[in-house]
Amino acid sequence: MKYNIAVIPGDGIGPEVTAQAKKALMAVANVYNHSFSFKEALMGACAIDATGAPLPDETLSLCKKSDAILFGAIGHPKYDNDPKAKVRPEQGLLKLRKDLGLFCNVRPIKAYEQLIGNSPLKKEIISGTDIVIYRELTGGIYFGIKELSDDKTIAFDGCSYSVEEIERIAHLAFKEAQNRRKKLTLVDKANVLETSRLWRKTITAMANQYPDVQLDFLFVDNAAMQLILNPKQFDVILTENLFGDILSDEASVIGGSIGLLASASVGKKTALFEPIHGSYPQAAGKNCANPLAAILSAALLLQHLGLHKEANAITNAVEKSLELEISTEDLNPERAFTTSKVGDFIADYI
Amino acid sequence: MKYNIAVIPGDGIGPEVTAQAKKALMAVANVYNHSFSFKEALMGACAIDATGAPLPDETLSLCKKSDAILFGAIGHPKYDNDPKAKVRPEQGLLKLRKDLGLFCNVRPIKAYEQLIGNSPLKKEIISGTDIVIYRELTGGIYFGIKELSDDKTIAFDGCSYSVEEIERIAHLAFKEAQNRRKKLTLVDKANVLETSRLWRKTITAMANQYPDVQLDFLFVDNAAMQLILNPKQFDVILTENLFGDILSDEASVIGGSIGLLASASVGKKTALFEPIHGSYPQAAGKNCANPLAAILSAALLLQHLGLHKEANAITNAVEKSLELEISTEDLNPERAFTTSKVGDFIADYI
Ligand SMILES: CC(C)[C@H](C(=O)O)[C@@H](O)C(=O)O
Ligand SMILES: CC(C)[C@H](C(=O)O)[C@@H](O)C(=O)O
Repeated sequence: MKYNIAVIPGDGIGPEVTAQAKKALMAVANVYNHSFSFKEALMGACAIDATGAPLPDETLSLCKKSDAILFGAIGHPKYDNDPKAKVRPEQGLLKLRKDLGLFCNVRPIKAYEQLIGNSPLKKEIISGTDIVIYRELTGGIYFGIKELSDDKTIAFDGCSYSVEEIERIAHLAFKEAQNRRKKLTLVDKANVLETSRLWRKTITAMANQYPDVQLDFLFVDNAAMQLILNPKQFDVILTENLFGDILSDEASVIGGSIGLLASASVGKKTALFEPIHGSYPQAAGKNCANPLAAILSAALLLQHLGLHKEANAITNAVEKSLELEISTEDLNPERAFTTSKVGDFIADYI
Repeated sequence: MKYNIAVIPGDGIGPEVTAQAKKALMAVANVYNHSFSFKEALMGACAIDATGAPLPDETLSLCKKSDAILFGAIGHPKYDNDPKAKVRPEQGLLKLRKDLGLFCNVRPIKAYEQLIGNSPLKKEIISGTDIVIYRELTGGIYFGIKELSDDKTIAFDGCSYSVEEIERIAHLAFKEAQNRRKKLTLVDKANVLETSRLWRKTITAMANQYPDVQLDFLFVDNAAMQLILNPKQFDVILTENLFGDILSDEASVIGGSIGLLASASVGKKTALFEPIHGSYPQAAGKNCANPLAAILSAALLLQHLGLHKEANAITNAVEKSLELEISTEDLNPERAFTTSKVGDFIADYI
């Protein structure tokens, strides 16, 4: 089969790690007789520098025509502390999510046995953890109205959610729970927020359509604590955009390394796959960043295209690299391999 | 000296733990020759049940006349999952914070050597951690407009911050940093939120008034991760209301027990002191809840009144109880003491 894949390397370490993910996909194409046509496009700080816009029109239209999108990372410190910046890299990613209708971000969190020692958490706490976070991605305070008073002394962010926005991701999360351990936890702040109460009410009303799923509720502050105290209690976590952002980064510590966490953003049509680590500008260009999350994002991409054998080939290669400690310095400080060496090993192994 | 102390036991385990804090204060009064006049008042679910209002007028006026407020906990599950509930317990606490101008919530997070083994985090990660979180408490999305569309399909929460609201708590946080290790970290989501950008801009502009303080910035998703990966990197953390709610509960895992975390809410005049654990309804009435956070809240209260020797007497007694393992079942499952027995020991030791 032939697939068109849009590749958006983005900022910081994005280009380096995405290159390894491409390598893995090319190896898969070779072995399994597929043809992937990769087209690269700009987004983020690099796009602002080159075109003035964080998401150039060509990037958006390329994405719309593609079967899937492989994305690296976004963001650059030169924009972070400049309150006067009119455009910011992140706007590119947010607009892409919105324009492609990528309302559902799926973040699997697993404790890899080989990496358990790297986690700040005790082995007995994390061993066996297997969570998927379903984060709403195109609503909430991320996309509400933003205002700054004329005299610049009062700022405002609006947060809204509709029943429709809640239901469409909730159906996906309920179904995922049915295919897993049949437990769904809604995380909200219903004791304070109107939007959270709408989430709780909507999900509660849906529960009878999924009688085999055990539904429970947790306030976000408590969830932030429970994720560390006892991560094994969770199966599927469903939550709104901002809470999902915070909790999924927090949960990344469980696996022993954020360098292994991939995510899928799905929705109306074309889906996007990205590592959850950011652009990590300090490491950019040094060929030292961990490419595994990007490579595992490519595995999620294959799965999404229905290529399950192919996806497993990648996951197996990644596990082999961990077993043999062919890893970058974050996992293997004593005998570190470079980003591209790890990518080479994985492509060869496939 | 004579002090008027308003006592609001609240819901769930609130009454039981607050009773132990009172005992400790009475012991202090005895030894150091003070007179504390305690007046009790209702707030929360118990106040709704008794009066229909989560914060009765008498409670508010009692608080306004008092030198300090000792508070237990709030919340009851019967209100959590009832989207039709017109009044909710939490509204009482939010209104009290607002009406008393308690804009600054101070939450110290320390790894107690005696409890390090209880933490889900590894010893080497947490040992020596000493953080104070300054959480803004009367602004942000907690107090913004809340709307539900007439057809009940769209919910809205507004979040706003003014320069004035940011500056008044930031001055307290900068000063605290000056008295400690001189590091202040602002946690925000300035890559997405307008309010966060106003925080960042305002704090940046204030930094030259505190040249001895090293200021840095962290996005909230990254902060949620860093708190677990390397909590020792933090000294004073400053953040807005909702982020502070989430991060301080998350950080509670560091100390080995949320049952030891006390907090002070300060602002315009009368200050309020409370354990950060919630009402924990499952344990209510069983005489098994850990009273140490409530007792340590009483120590913060004494400190706030300038009674430092007296505050130390309480802290020392608490440390002694830990050393001798005179602790409730959460800390001491094999040989658990009841809530009141732990309270008795501490009062006697003082
Ligand atoms: C870069 C940023 C806007 C983004 C977000 O907050 O959604 C990132 O943190 C993420 O989680 O993908
Ligand atoms: C009870 C609730 C409204 C409250 C809050 O969110 O502020 C609590 O979680 C806290 O942190 O004091």
